Amino acid sequence: HGVSSKLTPKLLEAGLKVIDLSADFRLKNPEDYPKWYGWNHPAPDTLKKAVYGVPELYREKIRDAQLVACPGCMAVVTILALAPVIKANLIDKDHIVVDVKIGSSGAGAKPSASTHHAERFGVVRPYKPTGHRHTAEIEQELSLIAGSNVKVSMSAHAVNIVRGILTTVHSFLVEKADTATIWKAFRSLYQGEPFIRLVRDRKGLYRLPDPKVVVGSNFCDLGFEIDNHTNRLVILGAIDNLIKGAAGIAVQNMNIMLRIDEKTGLNQPALHPI
Amino acid sequence: HGVSSKLTPKLLEAGLKVIDLSADFRLKNPEDYPKWYGWNHPAPDTLKKAVYGVPELYREKIRDAQLVACPGCMAVVTILALAPVIKANLIDKDHIVVDVKIGSSGAGAKPSASTHHAERFGVVRPYKPTGHRHTAEIEQELSLIAGSNVKVSMSAHAVNIVRGILTTVHSFLVEKADTATIWKAFRSLYQGEPFIRLVRDRKGLYRLPDPKVVVGSNFCDLGFEIDNHTNRLVILGAIDNLIKGAAGIAVQNMNIMLRIDEKTGLNQPALHPI
Amino acid sequence: HGVSSKLTPKLLEAGLKVIDLSADFRLKNPEDYPKWYGWNHPAPDTLKKAVYGVPELYREKIRDAQLVACPGCMAVVTILALAPVIKANLIDKDHIVVDVKIGSSGAGAKPSASTHHAERFGVVRPYKPTGHRHTAEIEQELSLIAGSNVKVSMSAHAVNIVRGILTTVHSFLVEKADTATIWKAFRSLYQGEPFIRLVRDRKGLYRLPDPKVVVGSNFCDLGFEIDNHTNRLVILGAIDNLIKGAAGIAVQNMNIMLRIDEKTGLNQPALHPI
Amino acid sequence: HGVSSKLTPKLLEAGLKVIDLSADFRLKNPEDYPKWYGWNHPAPDTLKKAVYGVPELYREKIRDAQLVACPGCMAVVTILALAPVIKANLIDKDHIVVDVKIGSSGAGAKPSASTHHAERFGVVRPYKPTGHRHTAEIEQELSLIAGSNVKVSMSAHAVNIVRGILTTVHSFLVEKADTATIWKAFRSLYQGEPFIRLVRDRKGLYRLPDPKVVVGSNFCDLGFEIDNHTNRLVILGAIDNLIKGAAGIAVQNMNIMLRIDEKTGLNQPALHPI
Repeated sequence: HGVSSKLTPKLLEAGLKVIDLSADFRLKNPEDYPKWYGWNHPAPDTLKKAVYGVPELYREKIRDAQLVACPGCMAVVTILALAPVIKANLIDKDHIVVDVKIGSSGAGAKPSASTHHAERFGVVRPYKPTGHRHTAEIEQELSLIAGSNVKVSMSAHAVNIVRGILTTVHSFLVEKADTATIWKAFRSLYQGEPFIRLVRDRKGLYRLPDPKVVVGSNFCDLGFEIDNHTNRLVILGAIDNLIKGAAGIAVQNMNIMLRIDEKTGLNQPALHPI
Repeated sequence: HGVSSKLTPKLLEAGLKVIDLSADFRLKNPEDYPKWYGWNHPAPDTLKKAVYGVPELYREKIRDAQLVACPGCMAVVTILALAPVIKANLIDKDHIVVDVKIGSSGAGAKPSASTHHAERFGVVRPYKPTGHRHTAEIEQELSLIAGSNVKVSMSAHAVNIVRGILTTVHSFLVEKADTATIWKAFRSLYQGEPFIRLVRDRKGLYRLPDPKVVVGSNFCDLGFEIDNHTNRLVILGAIDNLIKGAAGIAVQNMNIMLRIDEKTGLNQPALHPI
Repeated sequence: HGVSSKLTPKLLEAGLKVIDLSADFRLKNPEDYPKWYGWNHPAPDTLKKAVYGVPELYREKIRDAQLVACPGCMAVVTILALAPVIKANLIDKDHIVVDVKIGSSGAGAKPSASTHHAERFGVVRPYKPTGHRHTAEIEQELSLIAGSNVKVSMSAHAVNIVRGILTTVHSFLVEKADTATIWKAFRSLYQGEPFIRLVRDRKGLYRLPDPKVVVGSNFCDLGFEIDNHTNRLVILGAIDNLIKGAAGIAVQNMNIMLRIDEKTGLNQPALHPI
Repeated sequence: HGVSSKLTPKLLEAGLKVIDLSADFRLKNPEDYPKWYGWNHPAPDTLKKAVYGVPELYREKIRDAQLVACPGCMAVVTILALAPVIKANLIDKDHIVVDVKIGSSGAGAKPSASTHHAERFGVVRPYKPTGHRHTAEIEQELSLIAGSNVKVSMSAHAVNIVRGILTTVHSFLVEKADTATIWKAFRSLYQGEPFIRLVRDRKGLYRLPDPKVVVGSNFCDLGFEIDNHTNRLVILGAIDNLIKGAAGIAVQNMNIMLRIDEKTGLNQPALHPI
């Protein structure tokens, strides 16, 4: 993060195509960089060229893009969880709570006191209850879908796994809705998507999304439950943060840009039990 | 659960004092039993005699009680997290989201497919996104404090630890408030409480409550962060579900009833690292 | 286990080929069944038809076999670790200690008190310090290689992972040997083997075999260290018990029997970090 | 380690009593320091004054010592496991295999690549198959008990827990012995010891020592099984490496030196489940 903003414009000038895994071209508004990242963007014009790399939303644009900005790991699963109900205008856009649980690989490869096994093992650590940077791209994308300003209240917690993210989205329905209505919103947006699985079983151990069953794969599992008690809609999304949240989505974007089968290199199933 | 409602009236009649760890006398309104637990209460009159066993709220009543109903493990930490700001009337009572993360010991001692190590290890499992029974007692107690109806939107997740609960309360401030105001609400309610620790460090690994640092102890750690972006107040609470959430709080209540030092038998520190 | 011994003879009679994952046809001597398994074998004649399904040792026989008995998970990795030095006659055959560490998936899918997450999590449980049944097939195979009686002192421990086995073989060199000599023994036996990796790095975190780096794959990683202090040779072997120790080796054997590429369906790399 | 060897002589000269948790005064022979630790001891004369701090072996000497050298964490549990059968001359002193499994807290508080949660989680890592420094003090102490040279073949493995050590000692009986004989050796040495528990249940989950049931306590659990198949005696020992393996044994030694109740400050039970 930060390095790419300097390097990428040169690569683009040289006529290369760039798939960027850093945060440097995710935000469209240059002013969001000082606000959320604490530095001024050195190439604000290049931001306009970037396509936000979520194939489920921007497949056509990615195909023709010269610069694709892959999403943040927490952002992609949260955006995918919320996009259908934002698009269908089903929820209150002022009270969206996003409670994320993430494994230790999300902290990167560099050791530190906070990732030392004896200190990191067994935690449920609220490491970023407010102000997480991925909030910016989530709000940007959901606002684009809504056509109006969407605010997200996000908190991130570190849990005792290595890979995997569960996002729990707590939202409030603008009016009573039944399960079929919500399903319809999800199905209409994700019909035919190769890496989205809608999960809601009546039996078994994994009736709703759980990162344990996506580890090793490029899948994003999505599901929900309606809470009639408070008119709440709980949406759950699970991904492997290192695959659909990082390397896998980058490969998926590359495949689209190369106009080859989008699933190339991404066919491996999840590993279970793990 | 269920057994106690039949046995307890007889014990009371015999003049014994009862500290009940089941859910059978937690709810004051008999109609809440069919609603939340699916059975009719066989001794509705006895419900009136029960004191809800949270010493920080009902110490005086517990002292003189014949029947103390110890709280649910998720309920006690959530009530303790919310009581100060409900009492001080600081938050919107219609949009309270409670996102709980709990270890496997919360599921009890009986093996099942869902607690089989190979299936339970490494999960972030949304096992009760809506309709968790502890919602009933949380709403009951907070409504009593508020003097008006409080609704709680609660979801529970199983995480990869054995002991410990983190409750993340997402609430919205009715008007702008600074850190000092919130601290004041917490301090005024918990001044002198032997098992409440208000946690908010500027440095270190455990700047906010984390079950890892309370495991083995009767402490309830509480902390918060204000999210100016959405006017949200995130309150965090951590306990060891087997101690402050079960056996420890029962001993604490017993000590109060016996009029001996409330900390008797509960002085052990948390075990760390673990 | 036990079921197959009755069913398999009928399948063979019907002209089918059988790849058996149970223990029922692993041992050649019918008397070993009452001794190690506690029951008399109902089809002792069929034992003669079975080929022990370790491709690295019996590839040619497997190709033409009608019945292949896949090895026990702890047995295969231990046999692969010891075969080279037994064949090269480098170690004392009376003092072979095998100390196995295995994940919870080795206990099967059926829940029990011993696999209950709250009881199984965090253990280093010596669940079978003596008398483990896999000892029988290890001794059988090593004795065949040695051309004389080999005795193995094996102990099995349950550790806090789901997948994976590490076998630590402690053996004593019959005469001083240097690293090059031991390497030569390993290389000469496993030259060209697609699923054997000889591991011994001077740098990095994984200088010797560790199940963490084989999880999800069909690899068997092997390595060793010489202890000049006591003239000991420590050999280490790591596999994923559900793949090279179960389903993967069965597929490998099937591929050989079908005379297709032995690696078909087994090309997936290990998942790391996990 | 290394610092204490310079500081301690000055403290002793000043008339202070020293309980040293480093390795600097554990070995009696100055030549063992260059051999096992790679440096020359700066105060070889002070080594003579040091008492090796295992109360079960040297209680009387500790009481009157000016300098107590607390044992290494793997050493203390291994010495306690072997002392009874070495003393009773029951095992072959040339083939003693010690296979240790230890949690991440044994690596200390300083973060490194090898303790980074994403890399350390889930390992069964053979981090020191040969040449572990604790071998020196184990051999020293067992040779003193035996009255002759004892050699130990030790390997250490890192497993996926924070606290706890299991030592699995594989030894060979010099002549057939039954369970009663071995028990007698253990009981006669540890009769009345407050922190030694002899464990061997016929039922239940924890029939033999397992660190899971000693975490948080100063106990050393010991047990064994006889393997008639190879005339092997498997001895198992479990401790919490941070208590009986470090701070707890230091406090126990201090209590003895102060002539107060040896259990002072050490009465806390193990925490279970954990």
